[in-house]
Amino acid sequence: MLYSTILAGGSGTRLWPLSRAGEPKFLHPLTGTDRSLLQATADRIRPLSDADHIYVVTGNAHAAAIRDQLPELPAGNILVEPSPRDSCAAVSLACAVLAMRDPDAIMAVFSADHLIGDEQRFVEVIRQAAATAADGYLTTVGIRPVQPEVRFGYLKVGEPLAGAARTVAEFREKPTSAVAASYLASGQYLWNAGIFVFAVRAFLDELARQLPHLSAGIARIADSWDGPSRDQVLAEVWPGLEKISVDYGVLEGAAAAGVVATVPADMPWSDVGDFDSLGESLPTDSSGNLVIASQAEVIVRDVKDAVIVSTTNRVIAVIGLDDVVVVDTADATLVCARPRAQEVKQVVEELTGRGQHARL
Amino acid sequence: MLYSTILAGGSGTRLWPLSRAGEPKFLHPLTGTDRSLLQATADRIRPLSDADHIYVVTGNAHAAAIRDQLPELPAGNILVEPSPRDSCAAVSLACAVLAMRDPDAIMAVFSADHLIGDEQRFVEVIRQAAATAADGYLTTVGIRPVQPEVRFGYLKVGEPLAGAARTVAEFREKPTSAVAASYLASGQYLWNAGIFVFAVRAFLDELARQLPHLSAGIARIADSWDGPSRDQVLAEVWPGLEKISVDYGVLEGAAAAGVVATVPADMPWSDVGDFDSLGESLPTDSSGNLVIASQAEVIVRDVKDAVIVSTTNRVIAVIGLDDVVVVDTADATLVCARPRAQEVKQVVEELTGRGQHARL
Repeated sequence: MLYSTILAGGSGTRLWPLSRAGEPKFLHPLTGTDRSLLQATADRIRPLSDADHIYVVTGNAHAAAIRDQLPELPAGNILVEPSPRDSCAAVSLACAVLAMRDPDAIMAVFSADHLIGDEQRFVEVIRQAAATAADGYLTTVGIRPVQPEVRFGYLKVGEPLAGAARTVAEFREKPTSAVAASYLASGQYLWNAGIFVFAVRAFLDELARQLPHLSAGIARIADSWDGPSRDQVLAEVWPGLEKISVDYGVLEGAAAAGVVATVPADMPWSDVGDFDSLGESLPTDSSGNLVIASQAEVIVRDVKDAVIVSTTNRVIAVIGLDDVVVVDTADATLVCARPRAQEVKQVVEELTGRGQHARL
Repeated sequence: MLYSTILAGGSGTRLWPLSRAGEPKFLHPLTGTDRSLLQATADRIRPLSDADHIYVVTGNAHAAAIRDQLPELPAGNILVEPSPRDSCAAVSLACAVLAMRDPDAIMAVFSADHLIGDEQRFVEVIRQAAATAADGYLTTVGIRPVQPEVRFGYLKVGEPLAGAARTVAEFREKPTSAVAASYLASGQYLWNAGIFVFAVRAFLDELARQLPHLSAGIARIADSWDGPSRDQVLAEVWPGLEKISVDYGVLEGAAAAGVVATVPADMPWSDVGDFDSLGESLPTDSSGNLVIASQAEVIVRDVKDAVIVSTTNRVIAVIGLDDVVVVDTADATLVCARPRAQEVKQVVEELTGRGQHARL
């Protein structure tokens, strides 16, 4: 059976004021149901991995909330980082701990805060990726682009492998619009969705080859993980680990060495990057409005294509506006033109500048 | 010295969620300063009437707040109605009580919730109106229309009197747009601003002639006002008084009898009917935004001609919207296209229908 590791980190500042340092987006029910993004992620992978085979890597601040939201997971499957050190350390930790428990494990890595539109296709894609991983490849899922998006990294596809898999010729950084348009037109590029499947041994080999210091540190931590000295070793080693993403740290170099594959997938996928993309990803009412507000009294009059989110029991009344985002929380309200949803990040910076840390 | 009576009634549903049954608009600082509309009204009339000469007619629910906001007024000058019975009863009560104390009084009547742009001109206009009132006319202030407004009643001007005063030939109801445009073009019509000046004796004579039952009831109440039986007489008589506006009840009939005058005035005047007109009436910042939020953390990015009002210490962030109204209160937030500001009234009706009386 496949192991799955869910990376539950990152606060999602472009989803302020909903997503906060203390209550990041993956804990919120931005799924069209009452399940949080994290819970929906776990639900989605259950056909692939039973609860014993699902791991979560997260920070101290969220461990308790995650145990509450995923009570079916064994306590030992929630790996708590003492501090955030980017995705390479997180993935490596899960890999190394798992390798101690099951050296032949094949492990998939998912983000806790993505939405996927076709769960059956998702399961098929991950099964294909697991088969490719069993052949020794570090295997990514590549989403077929539907617009020239500049917010994502891209994978350039290479040679055919077994099934639908292809080698990855190259990782490409977030492009300019013109470059993104040429990628889309060429049909040779896929969005890097941050979903990976690999044999833990293959990943750890590449880690040792490319980042020997990080590899050695993670190995020390993994050795101590199931014993009495875990906290002490973590305290010694973790703060000195290199802070780098798994793409930069391992996958780009592995692609150059010819050991990265991708499974192209045409399923709807969203990283829920901002309230506009949330509105694109979930079903709306007949006026195109997405309303996520289980307790609020929401009144709309002649409103179209709006995204309205509330975590309160207050009244929200919206009159005569199209393409607007309204987000209401206990201590802050956002009102934003939907095409400008990315600028929420600048509001967070402005609040930081004003010393409003309690509101972040 | 002129007496002034401020009518402090009406909840202003088109200013929801700011204006509430329990906290009507005249108690809020919608003035560009920290003074409430009521306080600004009292400040504006102080060159005409000292505190002893200023009366307020209001309901039980607001008497305490009014005493707090206008501590300089003698307690006996706040006339508390047991229940709202429209403006004719309110004005008649003030007139009759005042006539007991000073039979020769000249009294001006003001609304507690209007904004006036030129306070010096205002004082000149009221002095002229008081002189016309001393000649025996029930004297209105007529605002020169600046647009074909359908929300106001109009006065048709008649013959010249002393100074700038004219007789009022006729009162006209709120017109259709086409009729309002013809009124504007003719130059013969003025907005009925709800500001009146008259000798209390002249008003009470017209009241007795036109509404003898109301006149008799008010006379009984006034007789008892400064004695021990006030509450008992009020309880007996007040609920049976005719519910009618002072325009319909007295002034229209008086105009037909030739005893109504008007002083035309070209000062900026607003009844603060909705958040759009509030934005028209107060100074804005260089982007055309009006922000009334003494405690809130307001962040705007690329926002023009907005009206943003908050009574809370929450954050309000607005991004990339023009001509929008955002009003934030403890239990409700309104987001409205500014040209649709009048439809707030329908939201209040919707909330009423949903049984949300606590939010009204």
